[in-house]
Amino acid sequence: MEQYLGIDVGGTNVKMGIVDATDGRISNFYSHDTASWRSSGHFIDRLGDAIALQLVEYPEVKRVGIGVPGLTTRDRTTLIEITAIPEIDGVAIVPDLKKRFPGHDFFLENDANAAALGEYYFGEDKLPEDYIFVTLGTGIGGAAIIDKKVFKGGGGNAMEPGHIPSKNSKVLERNIGKKELLDMANAMRASYTGETQLPADGTISTTGLVAAAAGGDELAKQVFYEMGYLLGEGLVAMIRILDITTILIGGGISASFEYILPAINERFNYWLTPYYTKTISIKRATLANDAGLLGAASLCFD
Amino acid sequence: MEQYLGIDVGGTNVKMGIVDATDGRISNFYSHDTASWRSSGHFIDRLGDAIALQLVEYPEVKRVGIGVPGLTTRDRTTLIEITAIPEIDGVAIVPDLKKRFPGHDFFLENDANAAALGEYYFGEDKLPEDYIFVTLGTGIGGAAIIDKKVFKGGGGNAMEPGHIPSKNSKVLERNIGKKELLDMANAMRASYTGETQLPADGTISTTGLVAAAAGGDELAKQVFYEMGYLLGEGLVAMIRILDITTILIGGGISASFEYILPAINERFNYWLTPYYTKTISIKRATLANDAGLLGAASLCFD
Repeated sequence: MEQYLGIDVGGTNVKMGIVDATDGRISNFYSHDTASWRSSGHFIDRLGDAIALQLVEYPEVKRVGIGVPGLTTRDRTTLIEITAIPEIDGVAIVPDLKKRFPGHDFFLENDANAAALGEYYFGEDKLPEDYIFVTLGTGIGGAAIIDKKVFKGGGGNAMEPGHIPSKNSKVLERNIGKKELLDMANAMRASYTGETQLPADGTISTTGLVAAAAGGDELAKQVFYEMGYLLGEGLVAMIRILDITTILIGGGISASFEYILPAINERFNYWLTPYYTKTISIKRATLANDAGLLGAASLCFD
Repeated sequence: MEQYLGIDVGGTNVKMGIVDATDGRISNFYSHDTASWRSSGHFIDRLGDAIALQLVEYPEVKRVGIGVPGLTTRDRTTLIEITAIPEIDGVAIVPDLKKRFPGHDFFLENDANAAALGEYYFGEDKLPEDYIFVTLGTGIGGAAIIDKKVFKGGGGNAMEPGHIPSKNSKVLERNIGKKELLDMANAMRASYTGETQLPADGTISTTGLVAAAAGGDELAKQVFYEMGYLLGEGLVAMIRILDITTILIGGGISASFEYILPAINERFNYWLTPYYTKTISIKRATLANDAGLLGAASLCFD
């Protein structure tokens, strides 16, 4: 039974655990405080110490996957821009760890890319080897998996779906990111004369929006229709450029999936030919809280 | 001195010749009539005969590259949809030719993809290993080269830049394809009150447009500005999805390059961050009439 060490480096916590390659079961889970490692002035050493502890307990583990919240070099050896932990920018983390743990292999990846790949190995649904993964949250992130591998593109940092041109001369995430979605909802509420359970005082929340839509609220459904419409247009561009027809939607606002879906499907039918529509499939990502850790571990597969 | 046989299968002619891998010099060039091969009812056999003649004369040639005007399977062995020669749809052309010429290797690719790759090996300019290639003509075609290879995407037929969503709920090529460009020019001419050398009787041609722009004609420059604006928006989506910052523009209407460039650069500066703009480079493709044949030959490189 093969096992990997998965490490999800985040701005708040560094989570790690031993992941069973067969079923994704997590053992020996630890969550370390990012701030305390940072304040020590030796973040990478602390990370190494925590890895050492895991590997002593699990000597059979030979592969370590690390997801980081930012940019890495195209060869995935070195950190370029980790906004939440800027003092590790430029660190050649993979060779550094390899020097300390010469018998082990380390696999580095951006955390969103890792989470996307994790869906392939550990998700509930059997996925094809090529799919687009889009996360809905404060920003609109994403990744593409091609041949069961993270698609790196030319420079190494492909798939910025939140930054493609969208309505009103704004990038997509400035139209349907969390804040923009709520701004739009509050604005639509202000001019809405029908019946709705959404508050008129500018305090609409994403949870409230989803709950209202689930209850059949027409205004909430209109808000999600607009969101799905704009997301759908962006997805069509990705589909035409990447020739991928399986789409996974994850992230904090993916609870809205059911309510954005009608507009997305309408956009697919408007723009796409049968070559695409005959195989198109869009669904919710299935890994929730463990997406980061399982995604990191999934980097260890060949 | 390595040599390859390049074959450019077109709806009108099948062109072939021996290509010097070092400098792209073409020898033993033949152009065969597609219609006559088709009417024989044995298109693939005729193609094989023509290949046999070339290989008898050049026994040192071991690799044959073939560009076709349509879709192939992802593994590049079989023709799927060759609109101009539909009777060869479904033919497993690579194994079939390999059976007849067991000592030779055959490399199949869509012709636009092949032409894009040809720019890397035979173009005038030294190119990076990753670039986007867009052709302006009746349609807006394209390809992406990543790591010196044609980017296939998920299903094998990536990069349909002409079919990404654009202005007025139309795909890009229904806004700036050749016919649509001229329709736009004629419409703008009809309502234009300034001085212009463009004819007002609905007979503006692309050559006339380019000549007028070259002469400083304000209306012609406006037409190309609009074209560059819409192309630029589409390019930004490709850049963000593929993380590629070298762009080549080819095709029949690329003579307009100089006049669409200002609007494209303006769009790049509007949408893109320094991560992209610090390396962005957009220029004209350099292989003209030989692009198809040289592109086919370029498939033979490792």
